[in-house]
Parts: sequence; structure tokens; C-alpha cells
Amino acid sequence: MRPVLLSGGSGTRLWPLSREAYPKQFLPLVGEQTMLQATWERVGPLSGQAPIVVANESHRFLVAEQLRQVGAPVPRILLEPVGRNTAPAIAVAAMQALADGDDPLLLVLPSDHVVANVDAFRAAVREASPAAAGGALVTFGIVPTMPETGFGYIEADGAANGVRHVKRFVEKPDSATAQRYLDAGGYYWNSGMFLFRASRVLEELARFRPDVVAACRSAFDSAKRDGDFVRLEADAFAACPSDSIDYAVMERTDAAMVLPVDIGWNDVGSWSALWDVTERDAQGNAHHGDVIAVDSRNSYAYATKLVALVGVDDLVVVDTDDAVLVARKDKVQQVKDVVAQLKAAQRTQVALHREVHRPWGSYDSVDVGDGFQVKRIKVKPGASLSLQSHAHRAEHWIVVRGVARVTRNDDVYDLRANESTYIPIGAKHRLENPGTQMLELIEVQSGAYLGEDDIVRYDDVYGRTGNGA
Amino acid sequence: MRPVLLSGGSGTRLWPLSREAYPKQFLPLVGEQTMLQATWERVGPLSGQAPIVVANESHRFLVAEQLRQVGAPVPRILLEPVGRNTAPAIAVAAMQALADGDDPLLLVLPSDHVVANVDAFRAAVREASPAAAGGALVTFGIVPTMPETGFGYIEADGAANGVRHVKRFVEKPDSATAQRYLDAGGYYWNSGMFLFRASRVLEELARFRPDVVAACRSAFDSAKRDGDFVRLEADAFAACPSDSIDYAVMERTDAAMVLPVDIGWNDVGSWSALWDVTERDAQGNAHHGDVIAVDSRNSYAYATKLVALVGVDDLVVVDTDDAVLVARKDKVQQVKDVVAQLKAAQRTQVALHREVHRPWGSYDSVDVGDGFQVKRIKVKPGASLSLQSHAHRAEHWIVVRGVARVTRNDDVYDLRANESTYIPIGAKHRLENPGTQMLELIEVQSGAYLGEDDIVRYDDVYGRTGNGA
Repeated sequence: MRPVLLSGGSGTRLWPLSREAYPKQFLPLVGEQTMLQATWERVGPLSGQAPIVVANESHRFLVAEQLRQVGAPVPRILLEPVGRNTAPAIAVAAMQALADGDDPLLLVLPSDHVVANVDAFRAAVREASPAAAGGALVTFGIVPTMPETGFGYIEADGAANGVRHVKRFVEKPDSATAQRYLDAGGYYWNSGMFLFRASRVLEELARFRPDVVAACRSAFDSAKRDGDFVRLEADAFAACPSDSIDYAVMERTDAAMVLPVDIGWNDVGSWSALWDVTERDAQGNAHHGDVIAVDSRNSYAYATKLVALVGVDDLVVVDTDDAVLVARKDKVQQVKDVVAQLKAAQRTQVALHREVHRPWGSYDSVDVGDGFQVKRIKVKPGASLSLQSHAHRAEHWIVVRGVARVTRNDDVYDLRANESTYIPIGAKHRLENPGTQMLELIEVQSGAYLGEDDIVRYDDVYGRTGNGA
Repeated sequence: MRPVLLSGGSGTRLWPLSREAYPKQFLPLVGEQTMLQATWERVGPLSGQAPIVVANESHRFLVAEQLRQVGAPVPRILLEPVGRNTAPAIAVAAMQALADGDDPLLLVLPSDHVVANVDAFRAAVREASPAAAGGALVTFGIVPTMPETGFGYIEADGAANGVRHVKRFVEKPDSATAQRYLDAGGYYWNSGMFLFRASRVLEELARFRPDVVAACRSAFDSAKRDGDFVRLEADAFAACPSDSIDYAVMERTDAAMVLPVDIGWNDVGSWSALWDVTERDAQGNAHHGDVIAVDSRNSYAYATKLVALVGVDDLVVVDTDDAVLVARKDKVQQVKDVVAQLKAAQRTQVALHREVHRPWGSYDSVDVGDGFQVKRIKVKPGASLSLQSHAHRAEHWIVVRGVARVTRNDDVYDLRANESTYIPIGAKHRLENPGTQMLELIEVQSGAYLGEDDIVRYDDVYGRTGNGA
């Protein structure tokens, strides 16, 4: 059995914590691990095989780094130049599995869901395996606990226990219909988790959507292999129709089966869902960080600095370095309207956090003024920024932790904590961390233009070239 | 007529915008001027005389600087080592007025109230003047617009127009009583604004509270004159009983009169009161700064970065550099409970903003890490920090605007934008701005201990010595 982790989401329903460049699956929203890491840990012991991850090209270093941190076997990371929904993502994952010389069962999992009962989840996977091995396309249906209108439902054929044939898939119901489903039994939430053989899902997809398979085949066969990364060929993948595996295959195939599961599942699809899965105090408050609450109930607060709540009920307050959200818990679906407004205005808060992650570490713009900017820069042990120059800004670097190896034109020298240097406008320079601990330094930029695009790269160990951050 | 501006408040009801070291009267809460400045502008044209300001010792530079900015005549600033309520404050102001060689009418005004109708205010002062000149102690009573339970009331004697004798002062009523006052007419809100002759208020205070007058006389006669500042003698003033002018004099004297006024008065005593006096949009929202509101009504939001509101009604959201408040508008009185908790925990957010003001300018701690701190420092033209040294930290300075004159041990040199220097541990150093524009620099501190109290002062143009910030 081979895990397939779908990490293509750039969800903004948890904005401002989730941003396009660093979305939900990479955040430790519940517990200390990120959701991607928790997804791997849930499935790793079942399989022993390296996961296949399908991710957005811009998230490649996050995926690799986060899975490395939890000791996962080196994954195959299939990089989508654009998102095309789950049918193409699963198709290329299946092609990769077959290309690796085997025809394993694929355990397909979104990488941004919570499963509270991991034992029950693993037991369900084992229970579904014989059917999948026999050629069925098994989906895991969540036993509903309330008349939820935010999910699609799967109606099972017959009331027996265990893996059953699917009678039909139904769209998100209205609340009366959802109540009827709950009362009737035999209806399950569509969780987006699947178990099927690689060849079988490709076979069925080819029956119903040969165009999808053809486009994926072309993108996969022309992919560039680059270390762990498999870069799907951009034009072919972009030409692939966008479709979900549900529409493309599961709703049409006779091989669809469902295993009802009760595993403490939550898709964490909104701030109120996150409140649902977070431990709460006697007043119903779920608080993260430095929060003082007076006369307040049933609220979720995420604080990066001091947040004080006074007399508020059923509220979501999320404080980040560059944006604060305050929303009524029953109106959090409208967070998407805020994100849409920000996107229309080309505000940075849609895509980036103030702290921006790079393959070599991160930078955080801690102060900005007219003609200057102050950044805190972290460089991982052994990492190196590109050899670069700037046309419009000079930089002062003050090391506050670790060792910096500085290249400035023809000179190379090391700086330790409390030492500084100066990079004039136009100087070719490089920053490296030759040490074994994190390097931290303060950079003061000075110049008429301070945009990230004022950079010429001469050499980059991460394969990035030319202009642009 | 001489204005007396009472600026002793260190109100925290508008926390986190108002802090002990920089309270409400020094903030531009309504309009572009601070409340102290607006108070002066309201009264300046009536008088032509330099104001007497009674203020907390720690606010002396704020008072002087803010009044200088609006072109007020050089004020007398009486500095209270501790607050003792309005009776002692007015007593020392009256002593100062008499010591200046005259016996003027004193127009006593809190420096943190809003008066929307300045013309009506000035007309009222003129109307009250003959009575005050004749020996009456005139208070301005606000014609009530609703059955407010948060203020004391003044009952006038008789229903005639104009200045009338006071029948009685009444404490904050319950809501039924307040409604009765409103229906009956002849009851006015006690605004804390007065007009009386300096000698008359001292005479009446001496009749009822000779102990207050004696303590104030001692503190005033032994005061240290220091430029514009009159530093009341600390032990004598501390020994003075604390009392309001209402209790001490107005409720007891036969000379109390009231002039009912309708001047758009608001004491801005809470966030909801601030919402009341702030211009609002069609949805009833009053927003300051970068605020996006979706499906939200009747809210007040103050943003120092992006603040997004989703589906919220009747909410107060105040975002500052180091604290965020989210409060229901009808519960804002409980903000004091938050402040009390913070005070008990000795949190800096009670006393200081992240940007700390000093007589020479300000500093703002933009980033803090283990063993280092980054500050943005602003030095006013012509200003100078003390000659100082630090036992535990080194400092890197990078000038980003203006000119810095640096003294480092025996060397003195100037730095311009994009130039830097290094101050080793223990070096005697001074920073000055010899230029005509604001000097801004980035300071990176590095060391095992970075507290503000690691400072030895050798020389200070502002009379500050020894250790301490």
C-alpha cells in the first residue's frame, strides 16, 4: 500500500493564518505537528513505503522539509504547475506508482484534515484493503453526527456493516434533507479519502475521462525529474480539464464502494471547524497564545501578541504580524469575501505572511520606513543564498546568532554574533551559513527602491535564476 | 481670564490606545489634534493668556511639546508628583495665577473632553463671566440628551435661563432616576468645567478644606522652578488629602452657580463614547486605519495594520503594536478588568506603548530575539541623548535618515543615511541630531542583558541622571 498525500490546496478559508504561499496543510493548527506531518504520521506505519505527494510547485520546499522533519522516507513529490482538482492529481500519482515498478494500493488522503481517532482510521484502512485489492474503488464515508449542509453525502447500498456498494453520491443538501439523511441512516459524509489499486483507478478514469488521462500521461511522461521533485510538464498539465475524482469516476463507476467510518474526522474547512476540534476551557473558549478573556464565551482566539477579549461570545479573533481577523463564528464563511477584496486590491496579505519562507531559511520584514527596511534573516545550517546583486539598495548585516560566511565581490570572510558588514549597491554578494546552528542576522536595507524584484542572481543552489525573489 | 488645563489623568479606560505613560489627553482620538491641543485651541482665542497646566510629572515633556506644536503661549506647567484629584490641582493653579501678579478668572477645563460646538462653548464662557467676576463659582452643566447613569447631575435652582444658583449636586443616579431628571428638566450633567476668580476659589476652599489649602501652599511655596516647569514639593503634595473640587467646595458653598450649556460635550470616557463622537458610515461603523468590514455594523475599529471584520455588530476592535482589544460595545467598562490583570502581572502594556516617547524623540522596539533587540530610534532636530554607557550590551547604529553626531569615548563624528557605527560594551557614547530634520536610525543591540535599566548617565540635557531609562 502506498500513501498518496494531496497537498494542492491553497485554502484561504483560514486566512489570515493560512496564506497562498503557506497554506493550512503546512501549519500546526491542531497540536504541534503541521497537518501534512500529522497526515503522514497517521498513515506511515500502515505502509512503510515512501509517500507520493502531489503539491503546488511553489510549495515544493515546504513539503520536502516538513516530511524530512518527521522522518518520512524520501517522498516522490509531483509538482503541479497549476491546480486541476483531484482527478488529474490522482492520475499522475497512479502513473508514478506504476512507473516505480509496482501496482500498489493507493491510500489517497487530503493533507489538511484532522483525524482524532488514528487507531480507528488504521483499522478502517485494513478493513477496506481486501475489497480494494479485489478491484473496488473504496471511499471512506464519515458517519454523520449532525445535519451538516457543508458536505456532499454518499448513500450506501444496503444497511449491512463494512464495505458496501455505493448507491449514489449526493450534492450538499439543504438542512431539511440533511436532517432526513441523518434520521434515515445509510448516508455518509464524502471525506475525499480513497483506497484503490493504481491500475484500477487509471482504468476507470480512462473509461470516463480519457481526455484527462491523456493530458496527464503527456504531462507525466514529459516531466522533469529534479532530485525528489517530479515537475509535470506545464503546458500539457495546464491543458488538462479540471475535475474531481468524485465527478470523473466515483459517481459513474460500478466499482465504487464505501466503508462507513467513525474516526473523529474534521476537514477544518473554516475557523468554526477549527474551534470545534480545539480543546476548550470551561467557558468554551479555545485560545492559542497570549490571550486574556474577561466575560467571554465560546470564542476562538489566536494571538501572536497580547489579545484581550471583553464581553464577547461566539467570536473568532486571529492576530498575525500583518493582519487581524475578527469574525462572528457563524459568519466565518464570509472570510472568503475579505480574501477576494484583498486579492482584487493586490494586497500582499493574500499570498504571503510577513515572515517569508525560502529553501535556505526565511526573512521577516520587521520594520519598513521611507527609504529603508529592516529584515530578520534566518539561514539554515549549511544553507546558502544565491550569489546576487541589487541595483538600488545597499545592505548592512549584523549577525546576532551563529556564523555567517559572506562573499562580497572578491572577498570571502566569516562574521560571528555582534559583528557586521556592509554590502554596497551593485556588489556581488552571497550569504552562507557554514555552521551547525541556525544563523540569524539583522539586515538594514537602504535605498530608493526596496522591492524583492531588485535582484540579479548569478548562481543559486536551488535552481532559481534571474530576477525575482 | 486664564485657562487652567487639568491634565492629571492617566486613564486606562481607552486601553490599549491610552497607556499610563501616554494617556488619552495626548492622543489624537478625534480629529488630527490631540485632546490637549484641541482643548487649548478651544480656549486660546478667549483668553490670550498663557495657560496653566496641571499635569503628572512624567508627562511634562508631552505637555510642553504638544502645546508648543499648536503655538500656545509658553505655559506654566505645574507638576504633581502624585495625583490628588481636582481640589488640590485647582488650588495650586490658583496660587500660580495669583503669584503671577494678578487675580484672573480661571477657566478650568479637563484636557481630555470633546466639545463639538466650540462657538457655543465660547459664548457660554462669555455668558458666565459676569457672575464669576462678581464672586460666583460657576460650573457648566451639560443639558442631558439621554438618561445617562454614568455622570453626576447638578440640579439648578429655578427654571430661568442663563446662570443660576445650584440647588444641589447629585451622585450618579440609577436609570429610573436619570429618566426622571431628564423628564423633569432643570438637571444637568456635571462636566467638571468651571469659571471662578482665583482668589474666590481659594477663599472658599480655605473655608471648607483648610487642610488642603495648607498642604498645597506648602507644596507650592517649596516648589522647584525649572524652566516652564513648576515641580510641586513632593512630600508636602503627597501629604495633601485627595478630594474633588465638587466635594470640597461646589457642593458646600453658597456661591455655586450653574450655566446650562448645549455644546456637543462628550467626556470620551470609554470606547463606546468614542464611537459616539466619531463620524460613522451608513452601516454605523467608525473605522480608523486599514479596516475591511464585511457584513458588519455599528462597530468601532482602530487599526495600525490590516484589520478585517466579518459579520460583527456592536464591537470595538483596537489593534496596536503590542496589544489587541476586542470588546462588545456595551461591555467596554470591563476594559478596566483587563488593565487590572495586566497590572497585577506587571505587563509593560499597562504603562508603555511599544514606541516609547522621550524628551529627545522616541524609540520603538521593532524586533526582539534571544540576545538581541532591534530599535528604530528617532531624534528631534537639535536634540541629544545623554552621555551614557552600558555594562552588558553593544550597539550597532545604522542611520537611515538625517544626520547623527556620534560621541564614542574620545571621538566625535557625523554619520549620514546609509552609514553605520559600532558602540562596544562599556564605551561612553552620545547620540545627537545636529541637523534640521528628524534623525532616524536603526539600533541593533547585542548582549546577554538588554533591559532599559542597563544605563549609566554621565550628562543629560534634560536633567535626568544615574540609572534608569
